Amino acid sequence: MIMSRSETSPDEDPPATGNLVDRLLSGLPAEALLTDPDVTASYANDMASFCAAGTPAVVVLPRTVEQVQHVMRTATELRVPVVPQGARTGLSGAANASDGCIVLSLTKMDHILEISPVDRIAVVEPGVINATLSRAVGEHGLYYPPDPSSWEMCTIGGNIGTASGGLCCVKYGVTAEYVLGLDVVLADGRLMSTGRRTAKGVAGYDLTRLFVGSEGSLGIVVRATLALRPQPPQQLVLAAEFASTAAACDAVCRIMAGGHVPSLLELMDRTTVKAVNAMAHMGLPETTEALLLAAFDTLDPAADLAAVGALCEAAGATQVVPADDAAESELLLQARRLSLTALEAVKGTTMIDDVCVPRSRLGAMLEGVERIAEKYALTIGVCAHAGDGNTHPTVCFDAADPEESRRARESFDEIMALGLELGGTITGEHGVGVLKKEWLAREIGPVGVEMQRAIKTTFDPLGILNPGKLF
Amino acid sequence: MIMSRSETSPDEDPPATGNLVDRLLSGLPAEALLTDPDVTASYANDMASFCAAGTPAVVVLPRTVEQVQHVMRTATELRVPVVPQGARTGLSGAANASDGCIVLSLTKMDHILEISPVDRIAVVEPGVINATLSRAVGEHGLYYPPDPSSWEMCTIGGNIGTASGGLCCVKYGVTAEYVLGLDVVLADGRLMSTGRRTAKGVAGYDLTRLFVGSEGSLGIVVRATLALRPQPPQQLVLAAEFASTAAACDAVCRIMAGGHVPSLLELMDRTTVKAVNAMAHMGLPETTEALLLAAFDTLDPAADLAAVGALCEAAGATQVVPADDAAESELLLQARRLSLTALEAVKGTTMIDDVCVPRSRLGAMLEGVERIAEKYALTIGVCAHAGDGNTHPTVCFDAADPEESRRARESFDEIMALGLELGGTITGEHGVGVLKKEWLAREIGPVGVEMQRAIKTTFDPLGILNPGKLF
Repeated sequence: MIMSRSETSPDEDPPATGNLVDRLLSGLPAEALLTDPDVTASYANDMASFCAAGTPAVVVLPRTVEQVQHVMRTATELRVPVVPQGARTGLSGAANASDGCIVLSLTKMDHILEISPVDRIAVVEPGVINATLSRAVGEHGLYYPPDPSSWEMCTIGGNIGTASGGLCCVKYGVTAEYVLGLDVVLADGRLMSTGRRTAKGVAGYDLTRLFVGSEGSLGIVVRATLALRPQPPQQLVLAAEFASTAAACDAVCRIMAGGHVPSLLELMDRTTVKAVNAMAHMGLPETTEALLLAAFDTLDPAADLAAVGALCEAAGATQVVPADDAAESELLLQARRLSLTALEAVKGTTMIDDVCVPRSRLGAMLEGVERIAEKYALTIGVCAHAGDGNTHPTVCFDAADPEESRRARESFDEIMALGLELGGTITGEHGVGVLKKEWLAREIGPVGVEMQRAIKTTFDPLGILNPGKLF
Repeated sequence: MIMSRSETSPDEDPPATGNLVDRLLSGLPAEALLTDPDVTASYANDMASFCAAGTPAVVVLPRTVEQVQHVMRTATELRVPVVPQGARTGLSGAANASDGCIVLSLTKMDHILEISPVDRIAVVEPGVINATLSRAVGEHGLYYPPDPSSWEMCTIGGNIGTASGGLCCVKYGVTAEYVLGLDVVLADGRLMSTGRRTAKGVAGYDLTRLFVGSEGSLGIVVRATLALRPQPPQQLVLAAEFASTAAACDAVCRIMAGGHVPSLLELMDRTTVKAVNAMAHMGLPETTEALLLAAFDTLDPAADLAAVGALCEAAGATQVVPADDAAESELLLQARRLSLTALEAVKGTTMIDDVCVPRSRLGAMLEGVERIAEKYALTIGVCAHAGDGNTHPTVCFDAADPEESRRARESFDEIMALGLELGGTITGEHGVGVLKKEWLAREIGPVGVEMQRAIKTTFDPLGILNPGKLF
């Protein structure tokens, strides 16, 4: 089999895969290499819709830093593109293979190397599953906040690559805020350490943050030092039902302007609530136009819920139901967590957007999405990390219907344009990948693109690191 | 007057200052330019010791973004180095002039452009004083946490340039965590926007964080969008006296491992306590070996202080005094805030170090500093943001005594070596500047230096932005 030329691979003739495999095997055990095309094909995609993927030449599953270095040295020598992957739960195609690439799966580097309650840090390999880390630090009374929906599957390395968020961000921020230092294998195989294991540090440029969210385009993260927090008290959840999304968004603004610090502030629109009910028979109010979930993990969450409940009522909530205990709270959260799966069941396929707007513009955003759904005759459910202004308009469509698929794709672009118009960003937490690379340029402008490309070239002069992503 | 050649200026013959002034005046009002050598000389230094400074050719005080762009275009055209400055309260020489440079003082761009309680952001020009912003957002019930000791004088632009910290960091983190987006004038005068005004955003590489702490070496920050928090309750302070620094450090570890989240956790050693008493007659316990101050800004600070007080006693505190009210708390904090000034009064001059170690190594750090003080027969007072492991060993010496000055300089290097040995960083919050550039290379290693230099070259190919700093 001869490698086909990748979009952004260099000018020289591509090497034969046989040669590539031989070179890789000179520094890797045989079981670290997958070459059966049927198997390697299963590593071609992450979970994004509308993102083309190429055919990998080989999949490598290293277990040590030295093995990763060997892979990168080989890739540099042979000018072969490398696509790093975690659990492939990403939603923007950032982990999609390009033709003839080495897929570098970090999933076997899955050791938690250290947990320190005094220093409040963990040191981990990139393949550690988010939930595994969360539970492990929990045993020490510690808390690793970032909680993307895929937290039971996704890896810390993937979370770092995509700078992922979750439900906790309104109080605890995103993955970026928990990465103190990294070990990175550069394109040419050299190892670089960034950052620190101290609480503070300002020695030189912040390369750690440069790598967070860089989608494997600057280097391969092989170790991370993460900041932890003490475990907060169990959160208590309140549900508030509204007769309009506008009223729910008004409540969000009142809560945040009122100085409250909820540990979660989520919104589900009518379409989402109906989809969740249809799937899981959860008994959510069928007549609602918008459901707001607020939670507090403070010492007196009932008092906080009472205050926030009053603000919801002032904003026109038709019903306010504070959970009495952890079990009731968990049930409400389960409804929110099922949202995307439930929306997927509506028509078989979804296209998930990730526009984040200033929270003062949340109402305008939801109103606009409704208009767009009407214009394109589409079902678009919205669930949102409302406290962050981070909306996930989710287009439900039948992928077998080309006409509907076209409309879905078009509505997606219109939603991003709306987000930018409202002073927002095209991606709050899912990243750019393949899906939004034209839109990145629109958001950051020509000077921004030029400087970002220059940084890419600085770290990856041959263009072998995850080519065709971001730009 | 002919410009003398700056250390890192390009090869061509330097232009005459007359030419430089004429070009600058073509896009600036006359009052924005200072050329009187007696006046410009007063802009040569920040507050660092042992840092040489050059003679500026001219000082420019722009009031608009366009004026800054004009300055940078002129500097690029004439290949003149530019040294950006805020209030020059920095402690590493990062704002020191180089020979023949344009000093670009951002102090006149001092408008708060927006404060939004719903979005919890402020948009400011770089010359806004930290305390001015803090008070302004306070009127909206909001809180801008970063609080360097110089907060009544220092500017937000300077805080961003040096990524500065303060007393609040143990709970609220450093400046970097509050910078959402920036407008930056690049070396060639083009304007670039980074980041966002939303709570979350991952569109492309995080250039915002790259600029925070870059000490004016990558571009000129002309506008910043800052994250705010709701104002917390007034904090209550506890003082605990210990018979040894080791016992005080043990208490710090117990407090942090115990899951407490103090809003401040500061340590003053015997030398510092004596110096503060000598200056301000504050009645601090003269016999103490170490004084620990802990504060909580929670809903029930008295309960938190009681719990932390018990941990201090378990660690061997000889006396634990919780403040009863805000006034008593303020008095205790005042003692801490006076520390550096008081230490300066001991021998006329101080050399302030800024080593941050993992907090589990704080005891080893303080013990090592004591050893170094003995070895060099110097008075070294230590105050520390103990909760962060961020120590400020402060060498008190007589600058008129060359022999003592030499010992002071040598002890300084030894303290940094100790910090690195303990897994720490050479700078927790003061930055690298001129003072620690050899040490930066030791901390981040040759690959790190190579990549950091490459980033510098990407943004500043002519090397005109604050040359001779960092590297």
